[in-house]
Amino acid sequence: MDNLVIQFLQAVPQVVAAAYQETSAAVTETVDTAALSLFTVNNVWMMLATGLVFIMHLGFASLESGLTRSKNTVNVLFKNTITPAIGLLTYALVGFSLMYPGFENGTSMDFFGFAGFGLTFPENGNTSAYNPGYTFWTDFLFQGMFAATCATIVSGAVAERIKLEAYVVFTLVYVSLAYPIIGSWKWGYGWLNTLGFYDFAGSTLVHSVGGWGALAGILVLGPRVGKYIDGKINPIPGHSMPLAVIGVFMLWLGWFGFNGGSVLSADPGLTSLVLVTTSLAAAAGAMGAMLTSFFIFKKHDLSMVLNGILGGLVGITAGADQMGVVDAVIIGVISGVLVVVAVVLFDKAKLDDPVGALSVHLVCGVFGTLAVGLFGAKAGMSQLVTQLIGVGACGAAAFVVAYVTFFVIKKTMGVRVTKQEEVEGLDVYEHGMAAYAPNVTNEMVAIQ
Amino acid sequence: MDNLVIQFLQAVPQVVAAAYQETSAAVTETVDTAALSLFTVNNVWMMLATGLVFIMHLGFASLESGLTRSKNTVNVLFKNTITPAIGLLTYALVGFSLMYPGFENGTSMDFFGFAGFGLTFPENGNTSAYNPGYTFWTDFLFQGMFAATCATIVSGAVAERIKLEAYVVFTLVYVSLAYPIIGSWKWGYGWLNTLGFYDFAGSTLVHSVGGWGALAGILVLGPRVGKYIDGKINPIPGHSMPLAVIGVFMLWLGWFGFNGGSVLSADPGLTSLVLVTTSLAAAAGAMGAMLTSFFIFKKHDLSMVLNGILGGLVGITAGADQMGVVDAVIIGVISGVLVVVAVVLFDKAKLDDPVGALSVHLVCGVFGTLAVGLFGAKAGMSQLVTQLIGVGACGAAAFVVAYVTFFVIKKTMGVRVTKQEEVEGLDVYEHGMAAYAPNVTNEMVAIQ
Amino acid sequence: MDNLVIQFLQAVPQVVAAAYQETSAAVTETVDTAALSLFTVNNVWMMLATGLVFIMHLGFASLESGLTRSKNTVNVLFKNTITPAIGLLTYALVGFSLMYPGFENGTSMDFFGFAGFGLTFPENGNTSAYNPGYTFWTDFLFQGMFAATCATIVSGAVAERIKLEAYVVFTLVYVSLAYPIIGSWKWGYGWLNTLGFYDFAGSTLVHSVGGWGALAGILVLGPRVGKYIDGKINPIPGHSMPLAVIGVFMLWLGWFGFNGGSVLSADPGLTSLVLVTTSLAAAAGAMGAMLTSFFIFKKHDLSMVLNGILGGLVGITAGADQMGVVDAVIIGVISGVLVVVAVVLFDKAKLDDPVGALSVHLVCGVFGTLAVGLFGAKAGMSQLVTQLIGVGACGAAAFVVAYVTFFVIKKTMGVRVTKQEEVEGLDVYEHGMAAYAPNVTNEMVAIQ
Repeated sequence: MDNLVIQFLQAVPQVVAAAYQETSAAVTETVDTAALSLFTVNNVWMMLATGLVFIMHLGFASLESGLTRSKNTVNVLFKNTITPAIGLLTYALVGFSLMYPGFENGTSMDFFGFAGFGLTFPENGNTSAYNPGYTFWTDFLFQGMFAATCATIVSGAVAERIKLEAYVVFTLVYVSLAYPIIGSWKWGYGWLNTLGFYDFAGSTLVHSVGGWGALAGILVLGPRVGKYIDGKINPIPGHSMPLAVIGVFMLWLGWFGFNGGSVLSADPGLTSLVLVTTSLAAAAGAMGAMLTSFFIFKKHDLSMVLNGILGGLVGITAGADQMGVVDAVIIGVISGVLVVVAVVLFDKAKLDDPVGALSVHLVCGVFGTLAVGLFGAKAGMSQLVTQLIGVGACGAAAFVVAYVTFFVIKKTMGVRVTKQEEVEGLDVYEHGMAAYAPNVTNEMVAIQ
Repeated sequence: MDNLVIQFLQAVPQVVAAAYQETSAAVTETVDTAALSLFTVNNVWMMLATGLVFIMHLGFASLESGLTRSKNTVNVLFKNTITPAIGLLTYALVGFSLMYPGFENGTSMDFFGFAGFGLTFPENGNTSAYNPGYTFWTDFLFQGMFAATCATIVSGAVAERIKLEAYVVFTLVYVSLAYPIIGSWKWGYGWLNTLGFYDFAGSTLVHSVGGWGALAGILVLGPRVGKYIDGKINPIPGHSMPLAVIGVFMLWLGWFGFNGGSVLSADPGLTSLVLVTTSLAAAAGAMGAMLTSFFIFKKHDLSMVLNGILGGLVGITAGADQMGVVDAVIIGVISGVLVVVAVVLFDKAKLDDPVGALSVHLVCGVFGTLAVGLFGAKAGMSQLVTQLIGVGACGAAAFVVAYVTFFVIKKTMGVRVTKQEEVEGLDVYEHGMAAYAPNVTNEMVAIQ
Repeated sequence: MDNLVIQFLQAVPQVVAAAYQETSAAVTETVDTAALSLFTVNNVWMMLATGLVFIMHLGFASLESGLTRSKNTVNVLFKNTITPAIGLLTYALVGFSLMYPGFENGTSMDFFGFAGFGLTFPENGNTSAYNPGYTFWTDFLFQGMFAATCATIVSGAVAERIKLEAYVVFTLVYVSLAYPIIGSWKWGYGWLNTLGFYDFAGSTLVHSVGGWGALAGILVLGPRVGKYIDGKINPIPGHSMPLAVIGVFMLWLGWFGFNGGSVLSADPGLTSLVLVTTSLAAAAGAMGAMLTSFFIFKKHDLSMVLNGILGGLVGITAGADQMGVVDAVIIGVISGVLVVVAVVLFDKAKLDDPVGALSVHLVCGVFGTLAVGLFGAKAGMSQLVTQLIGVGACGAAAFVVAYVTFFVIKKTMGVRVTKQEEVEGLDVYEHGMAAYAPNVTNEMVAIQ
């Protein structure tokens, strides 16, 4: 028996090991499938968020052309069409490397870094080792779509009087240098991030940076011909409210990706919370602007409601993942009120902003960033002070760069079209075509 | 040797246990990852469905403004813009709690319940324990987007003559009370659900409820000035067919979320079947309406084709998950025919419905609900009877509430604009602006 | 002790087996969950890609109506609205079975096959055994949305002069027979696939096939009245540039699904690479066309930039998964240049193409297919030769079928509207309505 026992005993570890290994192999394979599956769904969400941010460019194109005059519509559309093209190409060339230069998360006090020209695909770029939420390609494209929105914000404020070439040069500077470098301070793990500055999806880094650029452009360009005559403000209504409405709905939809994608994964709790706070702030912004404008103007002003929605969206953006339902509604209402009041005040200050970009993106961008210190999970005096530092630093940098750029353009190539061109419309002079051509061939045919 | 044997034997259980536990830990972790992954993809699908239902509001805004006159365009757009805002806010305040009051699935014969004001985040709200298909936040937002569509349906039918304030008050009542309470009968597990009534995505609960509200509004308001003169029907064509087409495509796309999201998870078989039946019914609706309208009017009527698509979509909605390919095509064709015939009959009955909302949402909503008893997996006499009960009960409740609401509004604040306002256009009177402003400053400049 | 030892020893295998089985059951369940999760996310991506391809039909409707005259807008919209409807229904009836007739992957040299009328749901159609990337329903709907785009391409080229019935008959033939049979040569695993021809998402199979159909239509129809008079080219500008811009943005967005979905799963690395190459090619196409058209015409031509974007998208489509960042930009720039040059040359050849469909879909479709042999992972002389064979074979087949179809239509029912109808507009004659109706009832009311 002894031999048998010994043989048997010797076999025990192998039996156990075999059973273990068999199971273990199945487990390993399943671990891989489960992990791949989670990575894939995260990446799908981020790709769709990228598509949604892309469609914001159609939103801006529609909104800005709708709120300006038909004689300049081709010009507005042209700018909004080439802006994402320029944005993506320059972001591939330098922007992505400026925004994510490799600062060390948590300790870096860096202001500037550059990871080199072009896109270098990292070895693990298609795996969750690169990032659990997305591949390298998704990372680039999502951030690239963001970058282009920043310049688009400026385009609305300088519409109907800026030279096309001047706008292109400004956009090149702003999208390829100003936006990514300022962005690196927070999202690239630079000094503002180390200080504890919080800007979830870019109330400051995207919207107020765009807004400061808009302010610089307005200051350098001056108001449109006929807007302020003898101290009187002449409203210049937009030529198509349906276009403006299409634009705002596209932007609201796009914000599902702008804020929802800023979670940087498909985390169910966070992404869905962000969509709720975002939509409630938009809805509350509409109500805030509707009531405020009715109180002031005694009429139901559609463009104010539209800008109220956008104000609510910009306002919630810095803290969309930190707020509760009530916070989001309060932030939305305040943003809606602010938009209307700001439109009136900027007009009194003779800052001619055809689409209300300053009120929406600058004012609500600043408010939304400060709101992180006033409402929600991060509220507190020290956070508020840090938010103020971020707002001030990004604002100063953005405004100075934008102002200098516009000023140099003005002194060299010229920034503004001639008065004749402005009066007759930029479409004929810069583009040789009308946005709405009549049925031209009928007459030709009649005389054939 | 004996001691050795004993020692060894004593060790065996530990070895086995250790191997088991090690594997088991890996398994547990993987079970978690796999489960989280499935939950995440379900939630991603539902969030995207939410975005798609949201964009239906742009669809309605475009369609309704396209099918009405340019003098009322700002007014139509204004209503369609604030409706989702009001809808979301009131749904957060009371609607969600009225629609899902906690009735017991399968046994409840309840007509009314209320879970309390505001949104209370449940402890497990971000996990699959709340629901395997979505988080609490996604649940609220998806249902909230649905709620607002119900009022939007009414807005088209009452367009071009209703006072803005009257519409707002009606919307508040209908979205915050009527829609969620009626909805609770089925989707909140109330008495209709217990009876076996089936309405997959809301042919009755959304579309016919909206349609009954539209009918009540049309009856209380009366026809537009100039529509019926001396017994003659004067067609009042819409001012922009491109807008109408944009609207219908947005609605068709949105229906991917409306029906696809009503699966309440990303279940591959069910969701993809639903998209197929939905799209085939839309396509068949287009064909049904195209041929019927050509047969009746001897021309290719674009607005009929557009309404045929919508009719097909509404018709398939109640049973989109129960139908096969052939069922879907038949339901679509019948819906397309019904829409055209209904438009003609409603006009003969002098029920003035500027956008055809009654034909699309009420007629095809009722037909689609009954179709569940006539075609597909649930077809049968007893199901048909149950469907009839549901159609009747929801219709009676919706119509009575809507009629009383409109009637009280009429007797108190007034429901209709003055004749002068209607003739000159609501845009100037209620909003002080035109949808399509001319290039106003040229003249000012010329005389400077 | 011996008995004890023996008893114990006898128990060991059971203990191990029990531990193994318990773990194993958990593993099996998790394997299922993990696999289901991956299948579900793949299917979600493919369903969303389907939705995005669907919205391309709105893109074409907007683009084509924007680039043509307002007197024909209802007609253009009508065609673009019924095309996806006809496409889906015929694809369900015969197209899907013609395109995927069951040729053997890798060895088939088949030219034609037919799997039978209608859709037969396979037993495993909702599982990953059907395809790891999607269900049977998703497969059908994604491919069906593709099919309809092919006819839509033709609709733009023949706009403003083709009879509606002639277009419908052509579409029936082209979508239900020509497109799926030619498609089966590659995507259905026919002879071109066996030869090694590569066409990732359809530069040839969709776009150039559509383009050849467009060329045949233009040849049979002849130019629009008034376009070429006494050897002079009279540009006929489109009536709404905002519509054209909305169209192009919708198409770019739709291409996220057109190319992204052609990966046929949600594979993170491949899908995200494809989105990057697609978007960079679009951006580079915009720049190529902007600079080329400015060089030739000395103005900033918006419609050229729009067509440059589309050209870049068509150009990258055949090899979107084979290219690097630099390849994509080069292909985009070349496509943008080609579009502008081709528009000029086609006009000189008096081929009247109202929307530039030949330049975008035919020229860039051919170039993009050849680009697979010139750039990226598959570059090489033998691949280039194979690509040429594919381009030639598909082109010859498509052109001959299209030409014969249009010719037979011309000789039987007639292909072109009367000159009076063309001059006064197709909207009045074929549809009895205007795209932009004035506020008709005011006058009626005034005389009441």
